[in-house]
Amino acid sequence: MLIVQKYGGSSVANPERVFNVAKRIMAAQAEGNDVVVVLSAQGKTTDGLIAKAKEINPKPSRREMDMLLATGEQQSVALMAMAIAHLGGKAISLNAAQVGITTTQNYSNARIRHINTERIMTELENGNIVLVTGFQGINQFGDLTTLGRGGSDTSAVALAAALDADICEIYTDVDGVFTADPRVVPGARKLDVISYDEMLELASLGAKVLHCRSVELAKKYNVKLIVRNSMSDDKGTEVKEECKMERMLVSGVATDKNVSRISLIGIENVPGKAFEIFRLMAKEKVSVDIILQDVGNAENKQNISFTIGEEDLDIALKALDKNRAHLGFERVEHDETVAKISIVGAGMATNPGIASMFFEALYDAGINIHMISTSEIKITVLVDENDVDEAARAVHDKFKLASVHAE
Amino acid sequence: MLIVQKYGGSSVANPERVFNVAKRIMAAQAEGNDVVVVLSAQGKTTDGLIAKAKEINPKPSRREMDMLLATGEQQSVALMAMAIAHLGGKAISLNAAQVGITTTQNYSNARIRHINTERIMTELENGNIVLVTGFQGINQFGDLTTLGRGGSDTSAVALAAALDADICEIYTDVDGVFTADPRVVPGARKLDVISYDEMLELASLGAKVLHCRSVELAKKYNVKLIVRNSMSDDKGTEVKEECKMERMLVSGVATDKNVSRISLIGIENVPGKAFEIFRLMAKEKVSVDIILQDVGNAENKQNISFTIGEEDLDIALKALDKNRAHLGFERVEHDETVAKISIVGAGMATNPGIASMFFEALYDAGINIHMISTSEIKITVLVDENDVDEAARAVHDKFKLASVHAE
Repeated sequence: MLIVQKYGGSSVANPERVFNVAKRIMAAQAEGNDVVVVLSAQGKTTDGLIAKAKEINPKPSRREMDMLLATGEQQSVALMAMAIAHLGGKAISLNAAQVGITTTQNYSNARIRHINTERIMTELENGNIVLVTGFQGINQFGDLTTLGRGGSDTSAVALAAALDADICEIYTDVDGVFTADPRVVPGARKLDVISYDEMLELASLGAKVLHCRSVELAKKYNVKLIVRNSMSDDKGTEVKEECKMERMLVSGVATDKNVSRISLIGIENVPGKAFEIFRLMAKEKVSVDIILQDVGNAENKQNISFTIGEEDLDIALKALDKNRAHLGFERVEHDETVAKISIVGAGMATNPGIASMFFEALYDAGINIHMISTSEIKITVLVDENDVDEAARAVHDKFKLASVHAE
Repeated sequence: MLIVQKYGGSSVANPERVFNVAKRIMAAQAEGNDVVVVLSAQGKTTDGLIAKAKEINPKPSRREMDMLLATGEQQSVALMAMAIAHLGGKAISLNAAQVGITTTQNYSNARIRHINTERIMTELENGNIVLVTGFQGINQFGDLTTLGRGGSDTSAVALAAALDADICEIYTDVDGVFTADPRVVPGARKLDVISYDEMLELASLGAKVLHCRSVELAKKYNVKLIVRNSMSDDKGTEVKEECKMERMLVSGVATDKNVSRISLIGIENVPGKAFEIFRLMAKEKVSVDIILQDVGNAENKQNISFTIGEEDLDIALKALDKNRAHLGFERVEHDETVAKISIVGAGMATNPGIASMFFEALYDAGINIHMISTSEIKITVLVDENDVDEAARAVHDKFKLASVHAE
């Protein structure tokens, strides 16, 4: 088998953990597999580099930031190669330029365009474990780009797809995908299997187990994904197309505190205003999540509210301010003390009662709902940040997610 | 003018110094010059990375070590680009792969083969200050190589030669090249000018101002070198072909404590033995410096002593031990408490009295000489490490190096 494994920064944070991972990698090879490993930067390396940059320039160019950050993964792969060699194994480290991982040109948030498999295949044929820098690529100028936070997951899945790997194992510091965050909801249970679509909703909701784009990519190329714990022997959670074995109404509860709400007050109630606002946000590369547009009042004015990630708040507010005259609103309000809570489940689409059970759980717990957004397999509501953990426990309880109940 | 500047690790060790250097670079550009800058890794970054590697593997592969160490310079150039941008300037960072600095394949001690000037020239034409990672290149496999300690000087001179630069400024933390180490010899005087050959002897003697290979390269391609202080406005020392202005008998005293002496006792006195020993050292990439071969004794046995850098001692002893039967010596002795002191001067070749003045100075100071080695413009002796600072002062005094005396 050809296996692609990905280890996150916390799994390689210190020499002890590096050796722990080295042994896992070597065990996979010893079983007769070809092994390609994608590594993130060690522990807090990336955060440290960002802090170093900000000390020098509060608004560093994205190109130079990528040039700086890409060094973190390069250090990881080199150190892992040394660890494997020390244990008697044979490994070689490769960065994005050496592999030939080409991306779109936009720095800090590039997308993988093509992966050259030649060098990797040659090294595998030579009996090497191949260690590849996650999170990065090179664009058409030969300049380093990064794939955005959590991009190493995407690197791993893209490599698995390009190499036609039999399996892509994403190692993290938890046993797999849970019905809720176990640190918040004591009864949270690990799922053995979950569908791409459910995982996609969970990933985009800040469940932090897998990077959203990596799941999209896995679905697109039908890559068999497994989320596992690098510190335990748990079999993890398998992410795949069909999950008939355990098709639940609701498979998990996810929360996300990294949310800001922006409200534009007193917008003229003419067609196309909402479109203009969200085109502006798209231009600034700000992802808009829940949108609430109220009906116009007597003066033919309306309010539009939407949520974005907290890291984008400054950019969004600045862009709105700059286009104030053009967009024609009275004032902007914003609120960072909000959070999202969502339930996700492939069985939800055909069970109209789920939404009301969800709202009932929140009502019973005395939690106020600000905004609501729904998709075929997800319902998200915006609540006060202080309420969100309590909300997760109440909802987890309501849907009895602590016990297995196949339907 | 096209100027290549090189700043060492201590010149960019913290944000304050980074900004200091950024201002110097921008000043050079503001005077109407095209500026290409070579940077080393910040402060103790390289040492830190080496320590990190050794923690994982005491004998890491050279390839992986280069992969690891190359990240230090990449961080430097990215941070400098951010600093220049913050000050309103325009700069772009490039690593060895992006420039196209190709080297021989041997890791940790590669030599530059070719530099592609296209990308740099394009960026200069776009009005950019071009920041290039020192110390590194890529070999024919596309893998990262490093040029050995101090290799950033070599990178700078090679770039200056490839770009046909008008001048190559090497910035360091002293005002230029001195007649002796000012920390040891209080009367040491800065030289305004020195010849390539003299500088070459000083560099190879551990004067630590310039990397030896960089001077060789500067001489070969006739690159105008200037050694300057990044913290002061001193004009520095110019290194060039002819130094008629200040042609001194002795231009400087250099000392080097990083020396080990190895003695092979009781070698059979047959032709070719010395050759075999030094071929072995060359195979292990150990540079041998002073060699002393005594005349054979009654039993037709002889002793051979030679000096090497302390960092090579383990490798050398291990190699000798492995080849003991073949080389046929009785035993090996080694001594790390020795040091070299040398005088260098282009005027020395035609003045036979210099050597005796040198030895007289040491004799008067009561310093014992272990070994002697001479070249056309240099005389080196091996003394006890404890004596070497005193020896430097005595010799500096003897040749009245504190005062300018052109001849």
